[in-house]
Amino acid sequence: MRRLSALALLLVLPALRAEEGMWTFDNLPLKQLKEKYAFEPGKEWIDHVRLSTLTLGGCTGSFVSAEGLVLTNHHCTRGSIQRLSTKDRDLVKNGFVAMSRDQEIKIPSLTYRTLIAMENVTERLAKAVKPGLSEKDASLARAKELDVIKAGLEKASGLAYDVVNLYQGGETWMYGFKVFKDIRLVAAPEIAVGAFGGDYDNFTYPRHDLDFSMVRVYENDKPYRPSHHLTWSTEGLKNGDLTFVVGHPGRTSRLQTFAQMTFDRDLGIPTYLKGAERTRGILEEYGQRSPEHARQVQTLILGVNNGAKANEGSLMGLKDAAAMKRIEDAEKALKAAVAKNPKLAATTGQSWARIEQAIQLQKGYLKEAQHLGSARSTTLGQALALVRLADQLDLPVEKRLAEYRSEGGLKTLKTRLAGPAMGMMGQAPNPEQELHLFTRGLEDAAKELGAKHPFVLAALAGKKPEEAAKAALEGTKLNDPSVRKALLEGGKKAVAESADPMIQLARKLEPILMGLRKKQDDVRAILEEHSARIAKARFAVYGKTLPPDATGTLRITYGPVATYPANGTLQQPFTTWAGLYDRHFGWGGNEAKAYNGEWMLPQRWLDRMGQLDLRTPLNFSHAVDTTGGNSGSPVVNRKGELVGLLFDGNIEGNAGRYYYDDKVNRSVSVDARAILESLVKI
Amino acid sequence: MRRLSALALLLVLPALRAEEGMWTFDNLPLKQLKEKYAFEPGKEWIDHVRLSTLTLGGCTGSFVSAEGLVLTNHHCTRGSIQRLSTKDRDLVKNGFVAMSRDQEIKIPSLTYRTLIAMENVTERLAKAVKPGLSEKDASLARAKELDVIKAGLEKASGLAYDVVNLYQGGETWMYGFKVFKDIRLVAAPEIAVGAFGGDYDNFTYPRHDLDFSMVRVYENDKPYRPSHHLTWSTEGLKNGDLTFVVGHPGRTSRLQTFAQMTFDRDLGIPTYLKGAERTRGILEEYGQRSPEHARQVQTLILGVNNGAKANEGSLMGLKDAAAMKRIEDAEKALKAAVAKNPKLAATTGQSWARIEQAIQLQKGYLKEAQHLGSARSTTLGQALALVRLADQLDLPVEKRLAEYRSEGGLKTLKTRLAGPAMGMMGQAPNPEQELHLFTRGLEDAAKELGAKHPFVLAALAGKKPEEAAKAALEGTKLNDPSVRKALLEGGKKAVAESADPMIQLARKLEPILMGLRKKQDDVRAILEEHSARIAKARFAVYGKTLPPDATGTLRITYGPVATYPANGTLQQPFTTWAGLYDRHFGWGGNEAKAYNGEWMLPQRWLDRMGQLDLRTPLNFSHAVDTTGGNSGSPVVNRKGELVGLLFDGNIEGNAGRYYYDDKVNRSVSVDARAILESLVKI
Repeated sequence: MRRLSALALLLVLPALRAEEGMWTFDNLPLKQLKEKYAFEPGKEWIDHVRLSTLTLGGCTGSFVSAEGLVLTNHHCTRGSIQRLSTKDRDLVKNGFVAMSRDQEIKIPSLTYRTLIAMENVTERLAKAVKPGLSEKDASLARAKELDVIKAGLEKASGLAYDVVNLYQGGETWMYGFKVFKDIRLVAAPEIAVGAFGGDYDNFTYPRHDLDFSMVRVYENDKPYRPSHHLTWSTEGLKNGDLTFVVGHPGRTSRLQTFAQMTFDRDLGIPTYLKGAERTRGILEEYGQRSPEHARQVQTLILGVNNGAKANEGSLMGLKDAAAMKRIEDAEKALKAAVAKNPKLAATTGQSWARIEQAIQLQKGYLKEAQHLGSARSTTLGQALALVRLADQLDLPVEKRLAEYRSEGGLKTLKTRLAGPAMGMMGQAPNPEQELHLFTRGLEDAAKELGAKHPFVLAALAGKKPEEAAKAALEGTKLNDPSVRKALLEGGKKAVAESADPMIQLARKLEPILMGLRKKQDDVRAILEEHSARIAKARFAVYGKTLPPDATGTLRITYGPVATYPANGTLQQPFTTWAGLYDRHFGWGGNEAKAYNGEWMLPQRWLDRMGQLDLRTPLNFSHAVDTTGGNSGSPVVNRKGELVGLLFDGNIEGNAGRYYYDDKVNRSVSVDARAILESLVKI
Repeated sequence: MRRLSALALLLVLPALRAEEGMWTFDNLPLKQLKEKYAFEPGKEWIDHVRLSTLTLGGCTGSFVSAEGLVLTNHHCTRGSIQRLSTKDRDLVKNGFVAMSRDQEIKIPSLTYRTLIAMENVTERLAKAVKPGLSEKDASLARAKELDVIKAGLEKASGLAYDVVNLYQGGETWMYGFKVFKDIRLVAAPEIAVGAFGGDYDNFTYPRHDLDFSMVRVYENDKPYRPSHHLTWSTEGLKNGDLTFVVGHPGRTSRLQTFAQMTFDRDLGIPTYLKGAERTRGILEEYGQRSPEHARQVQTLILGVNNGAKANEGSLMGLKDAAAMKRIEDAEKALKAAVAKNPKLAATTGQSWARIEQAIQLQKGYLKEAQHLGSARSTTLGQALALVRLADQLDLPVEKRLAEYRSEGGLKTLKTRLAGPAMGMMGQAPNPEQELHLFTRGLEDAAKELGAKHPFVLAALAGKKPEEAAKAALEGTKLNDPSVRKALLEGGKKAVAESADPMIQLARKLEPILMGLRKKQDDVRAILEEHSARIAKARFAVYGKTLPPDATGTLRITYGPVATYPANGTLQQPFTTWAGLYDRHFGWGGNEAKAYNGEWMLPQRWLDRMGQLDLRTPLNFSHAVDTTGGNSGSPVVNRKGELVGLLFDGNIEGNAGRYYYDDKVNRSVSVDARAILESLVKI
């Protein structure tokens, strides 16, 4: 009989794809590892890799020496390196190596943390909710209990605790961290090597990118001595070798319903891509005015292309008929299981239909969602933010929009609004660009929404788009941070009385925008509520046999170094230094300055080409399930030794947002041997 | 007014895509070259590159020395090199270099030709057809006149003349060739280098393949001194440089109707790919029996994959909505032009509709066309050929199927049928494989056609597929060539009286197969007739402003060295020796023996890695319009100097069968600098 019920389970369980899964440390896939790889990590192995890993906030790092040395990606510390640079000392361009401890440079306002303790508080929370409480009181009771637990744990341990929700609320945990605030830069290669191939090569493989940097964690002004650190493998990897990645994958949407994925495939992503194409067109049009104009928009265009590339990868995945069939079948199986269970049927039976209704509502305002807003104007964007902030602060907290409720969030928003103006990708706008973008933004809104749309009527006020843009831009003083600061401090009254034409325009537009926002909030509420119900139902049916969606918390994933089919052939599992030079000279070397210089190399690297062992593996491709946030994750072997440093995925890996495909989804890591050789020889 | 009519023409003329066009030498795109590249080749330049080029039959070559040295691809002489090899001297594996003239090895039965004279005989032919002749008499008159012209030209010049039809009969030419019969092998690299990446890398880029060989043309036992030969460029190419390719593109189907392309996209190619997948599955199933079984089918599987790859590339092209829109629009424009011209409307007005009808007929027997035949059995294939040959020879010539009419064709067929048995890809079958394939073939036929289909009834005769296959295979003597020879000589009577079970089975199947063949011939006749009419109409409307479809005759195409977007990034315009080693070591070097050893290198190449200038360009990607038959074509620069050797196209280039897309269609050539350096240093 037991055999039969196991079989029944097998029939219902959605098939996991080979190496799928970003597993939590309390629920490692030990059975799969034993069966497929004859590998049985003990508690010691598991604790060792966990305690060697750090979260850098959006990135991952690992201790790689007994004296607090941390290895992560170049792109994870690039912002810090930029801030440490001066006019005379461009550490981004020229790289950096501290030849002694006292040369290490302190990086301001960084926080690194390492996960020390994990406490499952699901049951304790459940007990805190007395039977018969209303939904709202239950929620309050849970929040209160969490505060109590957190205070208790922090007092007892000296650690900082975070609440962690897994399986969309199926489990609640308290994760306890040791926090580090003194981080110092130790080594980083030149950006030309640390981001070889630039945005073009991003999300691609074969790759030749020495994307690493090293920092050191200090405590009390002394190098911190971690309880665990990874030792560097002396053997290195070969094709087929099992690898593990420990890190903090940020977010996946694999638990979306089939209808949501279909929406993304047929409308959501295509709309995004069409918008990106339009943005690119507008920027290119500006760039055609002169080489200097072209230079101004070059980075912006690359950024647009990069976002488009990730979405094209995801779309490619959603267009894979076989994969979509698997997702649809898994959903059918879950629906059937829910239907059979009266309790689940009561809570979740209608959830798929409700989500479909929400999608229909979403379709109704898709065009407005694209065009109601700042019409590509940075200044109008600021004015709208100032107007809304003033209105919101005038309301009691509970009546405000979600993002205007917490003190911390408000503080960040105010700081931003009082600071230098930032347009696309954080770049400061210039008047000519701003006029061009604003004009095109207004033109597009008029074209797509129609001349009679309230937004268009209010924005143009009878003028032509260019005139309307000029009128608002020429009279505004919002470029002056002190003017914005005064409006921030003056609150709703100051805003209402402002004669600034951009503020006056924003005040006319705000009610129209708020109308859209209300519709969006209604849809979001339905999606959140019923997604959570479905997730909980899935957890009720399958328990922890499936891994939870990524939530930015510590996970481990495993899989072999592996080729995959792409571009008409099989991709090589490793690349080498030789390939770095092949790409460089294949693009014509430094003389050619091809494409923004993305494949150029520092002279030092050309001079020392003969000293490198060109056969040394530089990057490798492995079948592990990772996503954004895994950047900087250590790659370890069966012995728990460091063999690589994860920094990217291939273009096919972007489908990982929706599902993991073991045939083509690959992560891309720097080989530890290349890091060591570069430190010694370059 | 003239300006207006030129504009009107522009509106009608289907837009050529940038570098589209395999141009004939009498009609070079001089205007486009002047306008886009400020390049004006004179008669001398044009004659020089033409007279330096040879047709090798299916491949192209070029004279590259005053003493008859010819450069072509390794894959163009590979069969010859194989034939020159012995057990003790494997020239394919080990390569070959003649250190002196007397070491050059004569290659038996090769014919090389160079195009010396071209004569447009269209008008002369037209005059030979007296008004009022019936279609049949006109055809006879034309054939007779061609014989007269050919005899006259050959007598006057001593050249060998071929009839060349361009624009599907819009123009008829006589091409006169100087013929060479004494060809000797001079140099060839090891196959590991000359076909680096093997079938996996075929049709792909970035590529690292030294696909060249050198032979010498002799006349009267002395090196031939050609009137023209290409000199090697001393400058080399860089990204963006203009290149020309002179060669013999075999066949394109760009003049197919939109309906035919749609059929290929929705049914034709998908059916082919499904068949290939099934074949691969059947072979893999066999390979799972043991490592020795796997070895036996390895090459077969690679061959299947390779065919599938080319078709996947074509299908990718047919699925490009923008490209298909262009094709549809061009067809609409041509239809409109035909409708306006009463004469064209009379001959061609219905042709598109007739082709659509033919496609409908084709759909009706698609499944039969797949499954009526030898059911994957080599022996049954031979039996069917013997039976049909005997039947056909019993008929008067004019009643036979087309391929049984010419003496030459019959001789080739008989020689093949009396020789060793050849199955898939020319490999000799072995009994176990044969039984496996035959069984699966019969199973598939039964499954797809249904148990009641006459073919299935006849083939199985009430038995199960495996029994039926066994019964026929165990009793047959057809594996013995002398048995087949006796049947060939005995003719219809011997075949009718044969007690061989495979012959008896074939006799039962033949009438069913002939029924299908009749249907196919009817469809083919409609397609040929109306395709020719449409092509002639296109020629009448656009004249020689469009290049003709490829016909295996000498053409020139041009375009720059160029990158293209693929695999998420931009492809490097050149690859280098460094890349060769990157691929090799990236796959784990010779120890790894990865994937059939496709990326292994001879020890010599590893020993001399340090002697090569690793920066030397090895292959490059250029935007020229080529196809099968262009292999071995010289790539020349503006000066008419040799800069490269064409050997392949990228995967996207397979769409070139239907249309040329300048954004992604790229040809792949060996850089002349790599050839020279390898000859000196390796």
